[in-house]
Amino acid sequence: MGHLRPLAIILLFPTVFESGISSAANLLRNRRNASSSSSSGRCTYVKLSPLARSPHSLSSTDMASNRVIVYGGRGALGSKCVQHFKSRGWWVACIDMAANEEANENVIVKMSECFTEQVTADVATLLGEQKVDAILCVAGGWAGGKCSSKDLYKNSDLMWKQSVWTSTISSHLAALHLKAGGLLTLAGAKAALSGTGGMVGYGMAKAAVHQLCQSLAAENSGMPSGAAAVAILPVTLDTPMNRKFMPDADFGSWTPLEFIAETFFNWATGVNRPASGSLMQLLTSGGETQAVAAQ
Amino acid sequence: MGHLRPLAIILLFPTVFESGISSAANLLRNRRNASSSSSSGRCTYVKLSPLARSPHSLSSTDMASNRVIVYGGRGALGSKCVQHFKSRGWWVACIDMAANEEANENVIVKMSECFTEQVTADVATLLGEQKVDAILCVAGGWAGGKCSSKDLYKNSDLMWKQSVWTSTISSHLAALHLKAGGLLTLAGAKAALSGTGGMVGYGMAKAAVHQLCQSLAAENSGMPSGAAAVAILPVTLDTPMNRKFMPDADFGSWTPLEFIAETFFNWATGVNRPASGSLMQLLTSGGETQAVAAQ
Repeated sequence: MGHLRPLAIILLFPTVFESGISSAANLLRNRRNASSSSSSGRCTYVKLSPLARSPHSLSSTDMASNRVIVYGGRGALGSKCVQHFKSRGWWVACIDMAANEEANENVIVKMSECFTEQVTADVATLLGEQKVDAILCVAGGWAGGKCSSKDLYKNSDLMWKQSVWTSTISSHLAALHLKAGGLLTLAGAKAALSGTGGMVGYGMAKAAVHQLCQSLAAENSGMPSGAAAVAILPVTLDTPMNRKFMPDADFGSWTPLEFIAETFFNWATGVNRPASGSLMQLLTSGGETQAVAAQ
Repeated sequence: MGHLRPLAIILLFPTVFESGISSAANLLRNRRNASSSSSSGRCTYVKLSPLARSPHSLSSTDMASNRVIVYGGRGALGSKCVQHFKSRGWWVACIDMAANEEANENVIVKMSECFTEQVTADVATLLGEQKVDAILCVAGGWAGGKCSSKDLYKNSDLMWKQSVWTSTISSHLAALHLKAGGLLTLAGAKAALSGTGGMVGYGMAKAAVHQLCQSLAAENSGMPSGAAAVAILPVTLDTPMNRKFMPDADFGSWTPLEFIAETFFNWATGVNRPASGSLMQLLTSGGETQAVAAQ
């Protein structure tokens, strides 16, 4: 592990969650026409009735399209994915803390302790009975810290929210809304295939995402029939921010975002899709990238 | 993966955390003579001055002993560890939600969002400048659930609290209070070496613990010089509760708690201690247990 790599990873996924806490009541106040609710621990999960859907819900013209949800669709990689799938004629929904205007629809993540339930409910309201062809989870974040760091707890908590919760939510969305034979991608990290002493929370979170990907490949996982979960394990992505902060690095060893967006599109359409549960390392050298399954 | 295994694992570690939330003010109200404080995100970390220590703090007679902290020392395995180390003349501190009267000292975990900081502060107050020879984290828990489960979020959150937070806290305690050359043990699970489709949250949490163990073996991890982190990866432990719930199982394939307590004692005293970062599978057959490093 070179020292540059952790710094690089900071900037991959601009989607950032804070650990602010607000009450479920706030969530409820923003909703009308609640038709059913069920309790999931401290949060109340409210599902809107079909009649209460926003005017931006799926229209009949959307129904013929292929559909993809991009979790983290405002980030550098997420935006590229939104663009790429849109350019191929797909209907694209973005989940993030702010809207991506290029997407057909946006689910805005509200910062509360109940964001897991909020996102789940909002996606259910948006989709109704419609299924999607792919869910791309490219949300994430980076924070360093050894086990001796005074920020260990705060940063570990942040990593869990940014990587593990977004992946867990995406797996649940896949169970509920992905078509049979559909694709779920998750965002791991090559570094977390072994120890990461200088970034303890980050490593734990990404290792959890890797294991989640493997769990989803099991027959009894709850994934739709024939659907695949595949994780990408990048080293450093070639983003404008990374170039800004590491101007002297070898950009030829960084993975272009376009490669990932195109790879996702291929996998989503059945081209070279790895087996479910695969952890695909993205290895870039001399400007060429290979996706190589970790053993 | 047989169906019995997940059920078995439910009962290994009775230490259970709830996700109730109370304010940092409650924590502060219970403290007097605060001499310094620092903020760590939403929680305020208060360290008592030496003069404010409880009358049960380390006395001069304790100073010659070997010392161990058992996180989860009220559980089935934790109680056995407390007994074993006590019987060998060690000073034993228990961290759990209720006291273990056999321990020399107890740190009671208070159920608040700030329990990470509370435990850290209370251990610092208890130990002062004294270092410990070993920290055994045997806290944990089990909850099942596929990615389609309506309890996915609640159970994943619980697993994080029970396994990942206790392990993370233990790693921080090791950085602060473990002697050079000391031992930290963590509680993993053999099942999480691959996918666990029927217990998604559990698998993620244990995979995170495994990766934490590997991170702590890195030179720059913040662990004291020469100290080792070793995780045990059990399948099924032979506890009274497991016998009660699975009366027809082959007990000869379950790992006796005494084996683990004795193994920990050996490792703590330098006998057959595995290399730091080792993931030691506990493989029991015909009443015989072997600790075998996972590759």
